[in-house]
Amino acid sequence: MNHGEVSEIIASIKPVEKASYIAPKTRMDDLTKPPGSLGKLEDIAIKIAAIQGTDKPEIGKKRIYTLAGDHGVTEEGVSAFPSEVTPQMVMNFLAGGAAINVLTRHVGSEIQVADLGVAYDFEEVPGLLPLKVGMGTANFTKGPAMKREACLEAVIKGVNLAKQAAKDGVTLLGVGEMGIGNTTSAAALLTLYGGMDPDEAVGRGTGVDDAGLKRKANAIRRGIEINTPDLRDPIDVLSKLGGYEIAGMTGVYLGAAACGVPIVADGFISTSSALVALKLAPALADYLFLSHLSLEQGHRKMIELTGLSPLLELDMRLGEGTGAALAFSIIEGATKILSEMATFAEAGVTNKD
Amino acid sequence: MNHGEVSEIIASIKPVEKASYIAPKTRMDDLTKPPGSLGKLEDIAIKIAAIQGTDKPEIGKKRIYTLAGDHGVTEEGVSAFPSEVTPQMVMNFLAGGAAINVLTRHVGSEIQVADLGVAYDFEEVPGLLPLKVGMGTANFTKGPAMKREACLEAVIKGVNLAKQAAKDGVTLLGVGEMGIGNTTSAAALLTLYGGMDPDEAVGRGTGVDDAGLKRKANAIRRGIEINTPDLRDPIDVLSKLGGYEIAGMTGVYLGAAACGVPIVADGFISTSSALVALKLAPALADYLFLSHLSLEQGHRKMIELTGLSPLLELDMRLGEGTGAALAFSIIEGATKILSEMATFAEAGVTNKD
Repeated sequence: MNHGEVSEIIASIKPVEKASYIAPKTRMDDLTKPPGSLGKLEDIAIKIAAIQGTDKPEIGKKRIYTLAGDHGVTEEGVSAFPSEVTPQMVMNFLAGGAAINVLTRHVGSEIQVADLGVAYDFEEVPGLLPLKVGMGTANFTKGPAMKREACLEAVIKGVNLAKQAAKDGVTLLGVGEMGIGNTTSAAALLTLYGGMDPDEAVGRGTGVDDAGLKRKANAIRRGIEINTPDLRDPIDVLSKLGGYEIAGMTGVYLGAAACGVPIVADGFISTSSALVALKLAPALADYLFLSHLSLEQGHRKMIELTGLSPLLELDMRLGEGTGAALAFSIIEGATKILSEMATFAEAGVTNKD
Repeated sequence: MNHGEVSEIIASIKPVEKASYIAPKTRMDDLTKPPGSLGKLEDIAIKIAAIQGTDKPEIGKKRIYTLAGDHGVTEEGVSAFPSEVTPQMVMNFLAGGAAINVLTRHVGSEIQVADLGVAYDFEEVPGLLPLKVGMGTANFTKGPAMKREACLEAVIKGVNLAKQAAKDGVTLLGVGEMGIGNTTSAAALLTLYGGMDPDEAVGRGTGVDDAGLKRKANAIRRGIEINTPDLRDPIDVLSKLGGYEIAGMTGVYLGAAACGVPIVADGFISTSSALVALKLAPALADYLFLSHLSLEQGHRKMIELTGLSPLLELDMRLGEGTGAALAFSIIEGATKILSEMATFAEAGVTNKD
């Protein structure tokens, strides 16, 4: 395995020091509430505080990167929508009319949209980050989805997005995606890493029928047979079965962890990117939040593989970053608990003991 | 059963007309996303829209009422904290240092704190709504917690809070509570309405140990034996086993439904108030949202009894309205989906068909 820049960024990801959790945990237990009574909010706040190295963490600028890419495997009839919807939805994102626009506005977050591999020539569209690596992936039932070098290029472009965010003062980062066909790629990654049958890993995505579900599973079966991805080499797996936007998100996770910025996964597809990133750099877990459990069939199993637990369970299955955006509100609220609540002593409230 | 003002308000609660759900549902399915892909957000938005009688609902002013009251049953050693904490926490709410203050600020909601029955003479404290009905309830293991007339007075005061909110232009209302000992009252209501053994209905509240848990269950057993509450008469149940703040919240639910204002329950105790309110006026369900599943043992069963499902599951067990506040952000975000997203036609995106 030799992938220069990616190896460097992986090497630079350090676990959050155990000692960093002590001060925020101590303060949390001093606040005017029974210890532990805010449940997951307490864990979230302490995790953010430890990353920031303080007991009074602050969330300032928030940003979601929504990465777009097309998938050659759509030739196999795996999606309910045609590939032309990918660029159309990109334009919808830029016009502010999509769900992710509504929800990022709602939670006070920026949204930036990047073309990692849409099979459409946008030329120069204002507001779109032009990071195209290819005009959609190849059909992975016939060979690798991406060349290894192209996959690495997409990962690096994702890393650079996270670095830019850190430079811009972003303190909470999220990812999302748009790409007709990409639940098939994500399910292929799950099939491999979960040691599952493709029939268990696939879900309805944007709404395929039973026949489409069978086609998805068969495509994955053939993709794994023909490409023989090497499980010990996450980049091999990613390049053969992933997608440009999936590789890009893998890079965003790695870059965020390297820069010490908390990073929030969205749904099924972005979690598959996180799975690959965790294989490359297990310490990412210290910086990673899973926003929600999606309704997509395989997501529960995929989340188990990450070892983390999701914040929300709202039966969502849209992607784009919509779950991450909603989770931002929970995470920021949790953080404020630690920085804004009064202690028992400050408030003159009698403690339990 | 004869309780004038309460009967009137109950009679004025009308189910939301079935026809009111059609326009928002139609618009929801026209928006640029696969139908149903926003899961519970879609249901929330359509419910709010139907209440408002529009397909583009709007959430403006939001408010949480946190009602406080003390409980005579604390004599039985049912709580990990002493009753003096109730007025101390009320002062903490007014000073802005409690969790509910942090979270209402975070979601852009007002918070109003009312004394329904704290066993402490606040005299005139700026910012506190002085609605005291009694100096804490009586110990329900020895007789009724409240006289029927006092219970009705607390309900009416709650109704009037909701009416005031509607008059003030509040479009999303929540309730929460503070009252040492009140999980025992709520568990007593659950025991009765769930037909359960008290041992299954009680939970650790603010953190009682195993012996305290046994004392809670025994207190409930004796309370039911000695008071023989009449299950066909919710006010009888409420007055014998409830509390002033619990009765007050029952009133807020009824008043909100009567005024057509969506109302959000918080955790275990406020859900027990909702249970009583639903018995009095089943049509309340059309206006009611359950914010979260609490970690308190009996809450899952209690939620089942309401027939609704919770929006969040964050292992919280604090009360005050903290879960309702977090849910406000989800509900408001959902509402904006319906009013701010583009349709397929508007965005020029190819639909599935």
